[in-house]
Amino acid sequence: MNKFIPALFLFAFGLIAEAQEITSPDKNLTLKFSLIQNGVPSYELNYKNKPVIKSSKLGIETKDIPSFLDGFTIAKVENTTFDESWNPVWGEQKTIRNHYTELLVTLAQKSVKDRIIKVRFRLFNDGLGFRYEFPEQENLTYFVIKEERSQFALAGDHKAFWLPGDFDTQEYSTVTSNLSEVRGKMKEAVTPNASQQTFSDTGLQTPLMMKSKDGLYINIHEAALVDYSCMHLELDDKNMVLNAFLTPDAVGDKGYMQAPTQSPWRTIVVSDKAADILASKLILNLNEPTKYEDVSWIKPVKYVGVWWEMITGKSSWAYNDMTSVKLGELDYSKTKPNGKHAANTAHVKEYIDFASKHGFDAVLVEGWNEGWEDWFGKSKDYVFDFVTPYPDFDVKELHRYAASKGVKMMMHHETSGSIRNYERHMDKAYQFMVANGYNSVKSGYVGDIIPRGEYHYGQWANNHYLYAITKAAEYKIMVNAHEAVRPTGLSRTYPNLIGNEAARGTEYEAFGGNNADHTTILPFTRLMGGPMDYTPGIFQTKVSAYNPDNNSFVHTTLVKQLALYVTMYSPLQMAADLPETYNKHLDAFQFIKDVAIDWDETNILEAEPGDYITIARKAKGKNEWFIGGITDENARVGNINFDFLPKGKTYEVIIYADGKDAHYEKNPQSYAIKKMKVTSKTNLKQQMAPGGGFAISIKEVVK
Amino acid sequence: MNKFIPALFLFAFGLIAEAQEITSPDKNLTLKFSLIQNGVPSYELNYKNKPVIKSSKLGIETKDIPSFLDGFTIAKVENTTFDESWNPVWGEQKTIRNHYTELLVTLAQKSVKDRIIKVRFRLFNDGLGFRYEFPEQENLTYFVIKEERSQFALAGDHKAFWLPGDFDTQEYSTVTSNLSEVRGKMKEAVTPNASQQTFSDTGLQTPLMMKSKDGLYINIHEAALVDYSCMHLELDDKNMVLNAFLTPDAVGDKGYMQAPTQSPWRTIVVSDKAADILASKLILNLNEPTKYEDVSWIKPVKYVGVWWEMITGKSSWAYNDMTSVKLGELDYSKTKPNGKHAANTAHVKEYIDFASKHGFDAVLVEGWNEGWEDWFGKSKDYVFDFVTPYPDFDVKELHRYAASKGVKMMMHHETSGSIRNYERHMDKAYQFMVANGYNSVKSGYVGDIIPRGEYHYGQWANNHYLYAITKAAEYKIMVNAHEAVRPTGLSRTYPNLIGNEAARGTEYEAFGGNNADHTTILPFTRLMGGPMDYTPGIFQTKVSAYNPDNNSFVHTTLVKQLALYVTMYSPLQMAADLPETYNKHLDAFQFIKDVAIDWDETNILEAEPGDYITIARKAKGKNEWFIGGITDENARVGNINFDFLPKGKTYEVIIYADGKDAHYEKNPQSYAIKKMKVTSKTNLKQQMAPGGGFAISIKEVVK
Repeated sequence: MNKFIPALFLFAFGLIAEAQEITSPDKNLTLKFSLIQNGVPSYELNYKNKPVIKSSKLGIETKDIPSFLDGFTIAKVENTTFDESWNPVWGEQKTIRNHYTELLVTLAQKSVKDRIIKVRFRLFNDGLGFRYEFPEQENLTYFVIKEERSQFALAGDHKAFWLPGDFDTQEYSTVTSNLSEVRGKMKEAVTPNASQQTFSDTGLQTPLMMKSKDGLYINIHEAALVDYSCMHLELDDKNMVLNAFLTPDAVGDKGYMQAPTQSPWRTIVVSDKAADILASKLILNLNEPTKYEDVSWIKPVKYVGVWWEMITGKSSWAYNDMTSVKLGELDYSKTKPNGKHAANTAHVKEYIDFASKHGFDAVLVEGWNEGWEDWFGKSKDYVFDFVTPYPDFDVKELHRYAASKGVKMMMHHETSGSIRNYERHMDKAYQFMVANGYNSVKSGYVGDIIPRGEYHYGQWANNHYLYAITKAAEYKIMVNAHEAVRPTGLSRTYPNLIGNEAARGTEYEAFGGNNADHTTILPFTRLMGGPMDYTPGIFQTKVSAYNPDNNSFVHTTLVKQLALYVTMYSPLQMAADLPETYNKHLDAFQFIKDVAIDWDETNILEAEPGDYITIARKAKGKNEWFIGGITDENARVGNINFDFLPKGKTYEVIIYADGKDAHYEKNPQSYAIKKMKVTSKTNLKQQMAPGGGFAISIKEVVK
Repeated sequence: MNKFIPALFLFAFGLIAEAQEITSPDKNLTLKFSLIQNGVPSYELNYKNKPVIKSSKLGIETKDIPSFLDGFTIAKVENTTFDESWNPVWGEQKTIRNHYTELLVTLAQKSVKDRIIKVRFRLFNDGLGFRYEFPEQENLTYFVIKEERSQFALAGDHKAFWLPGDFDTQEYSTVTSNLSEVRGKMKEAVTPNASQQTFSDTGLQTPLMMKSKDGLYINIHEAALVDYSCMHLELDDKNMVLNAFLTPDAVGDKGYMQAPTQSPWRTIVVSDKAADILASKLILNLNEPTKYEDVSWIKPVKYVGVWWEMITGKSSWAYNDMTSVKLGELDYSKTKPNGKHAANTAHVKEYIDFASKHGFDAVLVEGWNEGWEDWFGKSKDYVFDFVTPYPDFDVKELHRYAASKGVKMMMHHETSGSIRNYERHMDKAYQFMVANGYNSVKSGYVGDIIPRGEYHYGQWANNHYLYAITKAAEYKIMVNAHEAVRPTGLSRTYPNLIGNEAARGTEYEAFGGNNADHTTILPFTRLMGGPMDYTPGIFQTKVSAYNPDNNSFVHTTLVKQLALYVTMYSPLQMAADLPETYNKHLDAFQFIKDVAIDWDETNILEAEPGDYITIARKAKGKNEWFIGGITDENARVGNINFDFLPKGKTYEVIIYADGKDAHYEKNPQSYAIKKMKVTSKTNLKQQMAPGGGFAISIKEVVK
């Protein structure tokens, strides 16, 4: 066979002559596009002459019409550069630079007369985005996607921080392993969830964070997921190739398209410094500017809520203990209360008092509305109406009381996955919110989706999540959607999407626990697409203190909980623990009160996925800075260089540190608070306990 | 083996001792319920000592929990009788008597502790209804139906008037054959449709009309289909047993249930006179009384509309000839009109003028709104917004103009099967109607359902149709839903459901034609559940007169078209032809103008399914009667006994008769109109042409 190899090489070289190449503005990244054998589109990505993505195929397999896979010729090539800065409504920095080199390739297929598609590449200093575009044309209108055939051919058996690929949930613990070990570890990685549908022994979620043996950090995700199904990655672990794997619908199709249209962007963020991954704004830059003319009503929110006491099992969402209720047919006031219903007027007022006293913006109340007795796992279509409170929850009185205290109420819309039912009630639900002083909603999609057969991450559900966001905008309502599809930077376009869950949040600390390295990974994975409502601030880390039957514990020290307000960027931050607990630790609680939730600048001081993260941020419009540092299960010393501070001034810092004997499991509540003065020349070494961290607030000394 | 038979008999007799028997009020019908081997519930039905339904099993097969199939004991038996009369909001008669004997059997299953179900039988003089009930109880809350196992064991190889069982359409021509011939005729019976999903070579639709060799007329259907999937019948053609076969959902399940709940009623209407089948009000009686407090806004409607000219191909629904449009992104006023768009202001005014001149209530306009260019077959989610007119359709001006002429506009909401999209726009669409003077809507569900994988007749879609009706009622809007599930008497409960299609309507006369016997069958099948918007009144039966490319013709004489206004009962009647044609036959058109659409009394004078029907009806609140007589492809003499008229008075009648040489194919427009006087003693023999009929209007002679 060997004698044929030179001939094949020649053939390949002949085609490579058509290759198109662009470099990133800083010249570190090189993108090469070419047609390989049979006119198959392909691309390669290099970083400082190291391969990030080896020659990888591109294409879309379709149903009913000829696929966009091969037989292509290059009809046109356009090169442009772009450089502008824009200001997000809220974010990690005041101004974001969107600077890239673009290659737009128009591809024609000889076999299908006059039909073209385009592949658009945008190469930034921090990575690559590419997408498929289907222009308006006579011979291409409607088509159905069978599978997107985008490949990401990796240069080696990288270390990966991965979750099992699943059409319904991302609430898994991250597994850290080489890619070659994925198959062997998949079974134990798939832990039970309220709704889950895995698809392969080597199926992975995005954002997928990887580190090569030669020190490259590579992150693969997507941007601007709109009216398309969410992409997973199917690992070919013989060749270390990741293949796009879209979420199917109820009949197994993967996308219904109408030209002119385009796919979401496929993103590859890459650097030889882990901190650059966290600093990347590539995904936001690939999203469209906001569509809203007025954004004055969109504000970051710091909140408390009637929530953790239900999560721990101390209280209940449900009013009574019935196992089956029919909305509108049951008079709740005639049923026997279970005595554990937290969302009652008197108790909510305690939260309002606490929020008001400590300057929080809002109070979330879950379990306020009829239907919680049988809300889960019944595939119940008409599960909530979103406007009818339990008899012990006085909406009008709480509206009045909260308003008198200068606090907003935060609405809760659990849908139980019953999407049709939610949409049917959505207008009235939002109108109810406006009428009763709510300007933000936490929505939830726990359990299997109705319509049955659809998945949380399919085109159908994705279309719904965006519908809920744009409809909310009509009412000037901010949305924090849990169990919805993972974010892909859409908050740039729709900034009232102020939060999402789409990962294993703090709640799992009460459901058996999160790994101690969990929050050192999330910023490299889940947070790449947008903020997470992680709900930090649990000071009573032993859940049994609230519910003797629950032996779970939070896998952090108390101080690490403080640090998360800085390391887990979100414009929506909860102080998730109970007021009674905060009242015992008001000195530490002061950091939660002080910490900003919107920022002018962000500096990633140190970071290594799975190990540690230290971030310093400047509060928006203020001369105040906050630093959070966290470590995994290992004690560690954080190195803080204050050179991000303006020169020549003195600052007073308050350091919230783990106690000397602190340990996330054995002694989590040990902490020490000290004050000191620093300048931009200060270097500080700060000890962190196992599962610990530190939090620092910084103010200019006013003389 | 024979020696065991006596033992089996004894065993069987032992159980039959538990049999429960009731008779109909007139004693003609006998219903026997018993538990057969293994505690399987069964029933038998006899009419005048002839078997109608032989011993047939009852039961529900479930998923995840033990099925309701066997192991039953009888826990309780309740016998009651009921007799009341009620007045429908609209109908074939002013007062309906609801008179039945009831047997309610409570069944317990030893294998499932403390779990019961009930089977409720209602035996009327005209047939049987039974349903399953699942009472509220501790051990039965939520369950999923795998299949309903109701059987209808027939006593012979009956002649049947059948349609192929299909989850998406009933728009098939009826096949008349013995049941044993179904399998052999199925293939040719399944003609192409815009959306179809057959399930078996012996699958049949309901209402299924049959005639036994010894002259029993038997009709099987269902009543009160609410939040359940529509029942088909799967024929076991070895044993002549019909098995219930429910419509599945996208994942193959057949019903999501929450106790307390019940199945729809399964109905068996039976008589030795065909006329009794048509006179039966059993299905309405098995539905609940209306839930609406105010029904004053619900009125029968006689209408014309911009419709037949599109059906024939003379005009178009679409404004331009583009093959792909995106709502909200296309400025239609900048596109090139195709010149065939019928729903333009000037043309609609012509219809309004015509309607006003001839006393019609309303004018339907199809194709008035943006989106018709690519509305069909694309699985397009956002296909219409239901509020945006084409640039040549001036909603405000037409509202003003119609109001000034005393005519209502009738809205058209084609959904293209995209149910989510319709529900998203429904409130605004109904509000738009109210704002612009529309009080009724013709809705349509052409094409495959979105969410994909759901069927037109599944629980999901059925739930939607009823949602659309009840939501419309909030706005005092009447609904005429096409391509929705076949009616099951729900118009008693929701009388704003004034029409449905759910069968092959007049439109098929322009799509190749309906059989000449079509309308002699429909009253025995499709119309058993409720009125049909059949859209009669086509005077120009040669479609080529409107569109030279269309060789279809209407398979009736002109006069038979008149007769249909009486034989095809509906509170919603269209004069479907074009004003230009009616203007050529104003003498015959007079009958359409005169005929009532709401009735005090109905007399079925003669009837034989597939052959002929003659019906006389008294107009509601007036001393006016109308008679319609129709025949199939055979010429026939109608026998009209006027003894339904009050005695001792003289009446003037106008007889609209086929011309002597009339023939539905060769000479359809030949007719003769004559006047005469009659009394209650008059007997009239009236000749009908092949595919013909007659229509008679009757007024008291005022001296």
